[in-house]
Amino acid sequence: MTKTSPMGWNSWDCYGAAVTEDIVRKNAEFMAKNLKQYGWEYVVVDIQWSAPNAKSHEYDPFTELCMDEYSRLIPAENRFPSSAGGKGFAPLAEYVHSLGLKFGIHIMRGIPRQAVHRNTKIKGTDKTAREIAKTASICAWNTDMYGVDPAKEGARAYYDSIFELYASWGVDFIKCDDIARELPHEEAELVMLSESLRSCGRDMVLSLSPGAALLEKAELYKQVSDMWRITDDFWDKWELLYAMFERAEKWCTHSGAGHWPDADMLPIGPILQDYDAANRTKFTENEQITMLTLWSIFRSPLMIGGEMTGFDEFTISLLTNEEILKMHKNARHSHQVWRREINDSEYILWTAANAEGGGYFALFNAGEKDGTVKLDLADLEAADKLDCTELWSGEKTVFDGFAEITVPSHGVKAFRFE
Amino acid sequence: MTKTSPMGWNSWDCYGAAVTEDIVRKNAEFMAKNLKQYGWEYVVVDIQWSAPNAKSHEYDPFTELCMDEYSRLIPAENRFPSSAGGKGFAPLAEYVHSLGLKFGIHIMRGIPRQAVHRNTKIKGTDKTAREIAKTASICAWNTDMYGVDPAKEGARAYYDSIFELYASWGVDFIKCDDIARELPHEEAELVMLSESLRSCGRDMVLSLSPGAALLEKAELYKQVSDMWRITDDFWDKWELLYAMFERAEKWCTHSGAGHWPDADMLPIGPILQDYDAANRTKFTENEQITMLTLWSIFRSPLMIGGEMTGFDEFTISLLTNEEILKMHKNARHSHQVWRREINDSEYILWTAANAEGGGYFALFNAGEKDGTVKLDLADLEAADKLDCTELWSGEKTVFDGFAEITVPSHGVKAFRFE
Amino acid sequence: MTKTSPMGWNSWDCYGAAVTEDIVRKNAEFMAKNLKQYGWEYVVVDIQWSAPNAKSHEYDPFTELCMDEYSRLIPAENRFPSSAGGKGFAPLAEYVHSLGLKFGIHIMRGIPRQAVHRNTKIKGTDKTAREIAKTASICAWNTDMYGVDPAKEGARAYYDSIFELYASWGVDFIKCDDIARELPHEEAELVMLSESLRSCGRDMVLSLSPGAALLEKAELYKQVSDMWRITDDFWDKWELLYAMFERAEKWCTHSGAGHWPDADMLPIGPILQDYDAANRTKFTENEQITMLTLWSIFRSPLMIGGEMTGFDEFTISLLTNEEILKMHKNARHSHQVWRREINDSEYILWTAANAEGGGYFALFNAGEKDGTVKLDLADLEAADKLDCTELWSGEKTVFDGFAEITVPSHGVKAFRFE
Amino acid sequence: MTKTSPMGWNSWDCYGAAVTEDIVRKNAEFMAKNLKQYGWEYVVVDIQWSAPNAKSHEYDPFTELCMDEYSRLIPAENRFPSSAGGKGFAPLAEYVHSLGLKFGIHIMRGIPRQAVHRNTKIKGTDKTAREIAKTASICAWNTDMYGVDPAKEGARAYYDSIFELYASWGVDFIKCDDIARELPHEEAELVMLSESLRSCGRDMVLSLSPGAALLEKAELYKQVSDMWRITDDFWDKWELLYAMFERAEKWCTHSGAGHWPDADMLPIGPILQDYDAANRTKFTENEQITMLTLWSIFRSPLMIGGEMTGFDEFTISLLTNEEILKMHKNARHSHQVWRREINDSEYILWTAANAEGGGYFALFNAGEKDGTVKLDLADLEAADKLDCTELWSGEKTVFDGFAEITVPSHGVKAFRFE
Repeated sequence: MTKTSPMGWNSWDCYGAAVTEDIVRKNAEFMAKNLKQYGWEYVVVDIQWSAPNAKSHEYDPFTELCMDEYSRLIPAENRFPSSAGGKGFAPLAEYVHSLGLKFGIHIMRGIPRQAVHRNTKIKGTDKTAREIAKTASICAWNTDMYGVDPAKEGARAYYDSIFELYASWGVDFIKCDDIARELPHEEAELVMLSESLRSCGRDMVLSLSPGAALLEKAELYKQVSDMWRITDDFWDKWELLYAMFERAEKWCTHSGAGHWPDADMLPIGPILQDYDAANRTKFTENEQITMLTLWSIFRSPLMIGGEMTGFDEFTISLLTNEEILKMHKNARHSHQVWRREINDSEYILWTAANAEGGGYFALFNAGEKDGTVKLDLADLEAADKLDCTELWSGEKTVFDGFAEITVPSHGVKAFRFE
Repeated sequence: MTKTSPMGWNSWDCYGAAVTEDIVRKNAEFMAKNLKQYGWEYVVVDIQWSAPNAKSHEYDPFTELCMDEYSRLIPAENRFPSSAGGKGFAPLAEYVHSLGLKFGIHIMRGIPRQAVHRNTKIKGTDKTAREIAKTASICAWNTDMYGVDPAKEGARAYYDSIFELYASWGVDFIKCDDIARELPHEEAELVMLSESLRSCGRDMVLSLSPGAALLEKAELYKQVSDMWRITDDFWDKWELLYAMFERAEKWCTHSGAGHWPDADMLPIGPILQDYDAANRTKFTENEQITMLTLWSIFRSPLMIGGEMTGFDEFTISLLTNEEILKMHKNARHSHQVWRREINDSEYILWTAANAEGGGYFALFNAGEKDGTVKLDLADLEAADKLDCTELWSGEKTVFDGFAEITVPSHGVKAFRFE
Repeated sequence: MTKTSPMGWNSWDCYGAAVTEDIVRKNAEFMAKNLKQYGWEYVVVDIQWSAPNAKSHEYDPFTELCMDEYSRLIPAENRFPSSAGGKGFAPLAEYVHSLGLKFGIHIMRGIPRQAVHRNTKIKGTDKTAREIAKTASICAWNTDMYGVDPAKEGARAYYDSIFELYASWGVDFIKCDDIARELPHEEAELVMLSESLRSCGRDMVLSLSPGAALLEKAELYKQVSDMWRITDDFWDKWELLYAMFERAEKWCTHSGAGHWPDADMLPIGPILQDYDAANRTKFTENEQITMLTLWSIFRSPLMIGGEMTGFDEFTISLLTNEEILKMHKNARHSHQVWRREINDSEYILWTAANAEGGGYFALFNAGEKDGTVKLDLADLEAADKLDCTELWSGEKTVFDGFAEITVPSHGVKAFRFE
Repeated sequence: MTKTSPMGWNSWDCYGAAVTEDIVRKNAEFMAKNLKQYGWEYVVVDIQWSAPNAKSHEYDPFTELCMDEYSRLIPAENRFPSSAGGKGFAPLAEYVHSLGLKFGIHIMRGIPRQAVHRNTKIKGTDKTAREIAKTASICAWNTDMYGVDPAKEGARAYYDSIFELYASWGVDFIKCDDIARELPHEEAELVMLSESLRSCGRDMVLSLSPGAALLEKAELYKQVSDMWRITDDFWDKWELLYAMFERAEKWCTHSGAGHWPDADMLPIGPILQDYDAANRTKFTENEQITMLTLWSIFRSPLMIGGEMTGFDEFTISLLTNEEILKMHKNARHSHQVWRREINDSEYILWTAANAEGGGYFALFNAGEKDGTVKLDLADLEAADKLDCTELWSGEKTVFDGFAEITVPSHGVKAFRFE
């Protein structure tokens, strides 16, 4: 059966390393009530949920982490009270499931450094953490873990032990960090981790971070994971959104059939709430429409980054546009057609087939000037005359031979044709 | 109107620099009689038609070329007798047109070195060849020309004068050499040449050689030309055919709507006739089928390289398979799906939409071992059950969920589905 | 006063990470008795003297280290009994001094990882190890330390505290590892460490490892250190010795006046004793003569790598050749003159001025064939007629215009001229 | 016998491609009268002496050149009248010799393009120019020549024929252009040219241009030539002089014994006379002193670039400083000692041995601020107390332990010590 690209919410953009159970619950409730019917389903707890002292987007170096006797990280009880008594994320996952949603967590590749320095046990083996660590493999931006050396006896058992634990909690989605761009040097660990996860007995999406992933390894990502980041952290800056057009162009033929190049989370609505509850996305409305359109025609996973309970009507409308979400599901063979300077602005044309018949095209204005483009329909290689519906306005037009389309700077017009 | 990728014959693979009028006429006649009805239409005279002494695929360095008073090369009369009396290629073009076909010629970027050293005139100006030559711009593999410096007065006039001449002869197709991979250093000359050609008053296909063209200049090629070579000269060696899969994968999103990444001529049947009339392609039948399938699903131009009058039945069958030629016309959004080691061989899956509805897929076995692959139809993102016709055998099958496909080493199975 | 390049012994080549006090004492005694009068003076304890479990040249990953309350490593008492009771290396240094020799130790750049994970104190501050560690700075081949971040308050205090300790022990020589080739990323830590050492109140040689150091940073090494490794670990293989000619050529103008590019230890006599007491250098006698000659004319530090008590007569003769050792002291402006294929072998000519008047030259045969070279004395730019003494044989010759010199494969003839 | 680095005059800096016989004669006369006694001896006619239309430093592209029947360039009679009647440069060389000086000419690697396009003869063979040209080998900045292909029969005969001609003229110095940095692609032509020149029966200096030569090919340059340019054209700009310190540092060990890395001509006095007779060097007096000092301690060839008859007293004094010229002859083993920021300026210390005993040192101030440096004499590795003579002022000083030296910005103090 044709797979679709994941849709959900992730705690990073709004809470960094410091999200708590309360926040997760209220966002899950919001999603269940307002977005679930549109296809949104994953609720993902991002990085350092085992750190009692996590306070913000800045990591606390060498911080103490909560860990079980088998070198496995467990939730910090002060932040996730329902995990008390060794229950881990099971109660929270159960609650999310009860809302008809799915539950995900973030992990870092490797084994906790504190396990290695304390030389704690590996479940089901007579090995210790010190014996399986890869001595010179550390993350460049976080001090929690050492890599695990696949050549060492006990390495696979460690990964089996953590996925067994996550499966027992009811986890549906693993965002694994410090791994997507760590090729080729950590490729063997990635492969082992993937095999371990896939044999744990529970179906979990495997999402790889951070980017930029390596284009020349596209086949590998497709085989070991469900989605992988094609960009470093994406934030609410036009330069980053602008740069995504080129990334999407390069990766587009690898998107589909259950493997998804990932353009990262959508920093919309209230974000960076750990710094100031007044923080809102700096993207304009046009830029947000451009982002949703590009992510959707390219079929990137759609992971909401903002605090959902604070969403305004516009933000909700972004996430509940049925035409756009159908394109996200039904687009096939998406690709850029061209990218050109026209009348002192820069236009980018994408197209895709529609699994229900007909097709899609989107004309982005990535330049600094509003403008009107006379598009030759021959560029779409469909019919000479096209019945079109603009996806954001719902407006219907019949174009014949050419399409004169007015697009604001940083904006887009996106059409379904029959 | 949707444009299709050019199909025709070119003299290089069989005669190198030494083709003659007789040969061109008899190949045109063969094409008109046997292939025209399948869409084959261009007859192209390749390099050094102005050199009286050309004998083979090896260029004669610094050889004397036939040239008019305006520094413009004209056909060597000893090889193209109908050009006598200053008629140029007009009589030959007229004959080709009379057969219902189109006529093309090869040119080198630039102005003849002999014009520069003799300091001959530029038509319609008071400039001379010496004044417009780009001093350090030469071809790395042929001594006929100097580049023309777009910054010099008289440069554009020179290009206008040659395209005016070719238009007066009735030329339909220009294969311009020493230009496709000469970027960025000769980009300005390419742009000027293209503008000059497009304002000459006659519609001519502009084909750029040699390759490999630069992927990062894809937008430029699309705007200035109709087709451009993505490979250095292609010959009948498996290694070159094998390498074309990667080239095609990289260029596939740029193919369509009148711009065609060009995988080069098809070295089939009798080739290298200047060396020995007994020379035949070294490709096996499976390899030729693979080549035609890849070129067609990728929509490369199809230019026959062999001496057509010597084609056997198999070769004719390659060029007259209506299903394959329909795919060449109707494939849309073609792209590689994956490339994988399976059972000790290497398989490559391509797919495309079909402009008439449904789609295509081709499973290539690029490895050294025959084998059977169980393909998950979900990888095609079409239906779970597909009514398929194999394009080379005509065999019909209904696949449900999976397709078990047996493919010989270096071979392919290609399917149309509804 | 003109400084000379250091001479001594280091425990690495014979004992790896596992040297003990007994071994150090008996080698010091041997040096005092047999070599001191020739200028040999340093006795250096190499890596991991604080690791109770060190057994060989292989490091024990994440091993427990002996450490004081201020995050400073101290000798493992089971290996260095005289250090008991918090005395550190003071008793051993005192003994070495009593023999008329100097005492050195190896350190790793940074602060112990175990200090960081246990968050122990930094002497003289209210900071802890966790607060001064550079989070992503680790050694690629040893797990003992984290780098120290010079931007952090307390970082300099930590380095001051360790050099204060070493000075109190009476250390004369610091071989600091994981630092010489760690530029530019760890340059700030190198500079801080050097400044700290030089303000500790005791004169200590600072030797930087491992190599290869970066030629473009030559000025920096000269300013912050006394010697620095221009090669990765050097062992008894001809390929490594052969490669040293090129390294020496590139670094030669930076050798002198108290700063010494370091070609690494001399693996002679019994080495690798931790694996097998029968292990002896694999260098031939000619190769050892070549090594001593190149190191000496280039003025590399001379650090003996073998277990001295097991030296045979030949090895002793290598280290007590007064002509060679005078060249090591008196050579000035040393450099390669040329390197050429002659009669199917490869010859390399070096020359140097002699601070006592006249000069030196050495003709190496780096090829695989014995041979005789007719050397044009003009290449030396000295006199046309030269009174020469061969340094290894003591033979005297007068060369006039040319010098016919026979050199065995992998051997050398070295001359002093007046 | 020890060779010294060439000294002379070259016409390029003052006349570009347009020097005439009159100019050469009057400069030769000036040299004979004023500079010869200081060692200046070569008078060199630079590029395009066979071009009748040469007018300035700009080359005339594809210009007609004077050539004999054997494809050999000969002087343009309108510019070199004494060459009339096929005498070539013989009369001018004879005149220069009569003044007690030596005569040199510039050549371009290769064979005239006009010879190739006219297909003229090669002396002593039945080959023609077209048959020996290397088809894709041209100069990037001048259109006169094609390279000669050493693999072709007749190639060596061509080079033999030109050096035979130059020898018959009495030429003492060949500056061969388009060759020094054309490695590795034209290495075979360089080797053939050198062998041909050296077997022509006349002793001629072979000077290779243009730079920057490749440091990794130092041994080759030493073996095939007498001097080679280590820099692109050098002109009277501080940035170029500043950059020469690094070039000289890198090449210094290759200078001596008849092979000379060449820092290019000295643009002093009246230069660029083809543009305006009022043009004078833009170097300050300090910069000129710096230039002469660096060139001399490094032992670069010294080739005067200005119109000598217009030299003022300062310029004459630069070229007739006997101490400096003795250093140019007697320096040995020259090298940079260090390069450092001191008191907000940048100082560079060079030293050399003196073939007559003692040594030299020069302290350059390459920064923008005058200053005084306290130099530790230990850095020179000579005596602790030095009797010194400053070379430009003649002032004598005894330094003890340290030398306090005041140096103006862009200036130098240079000392001989005993």
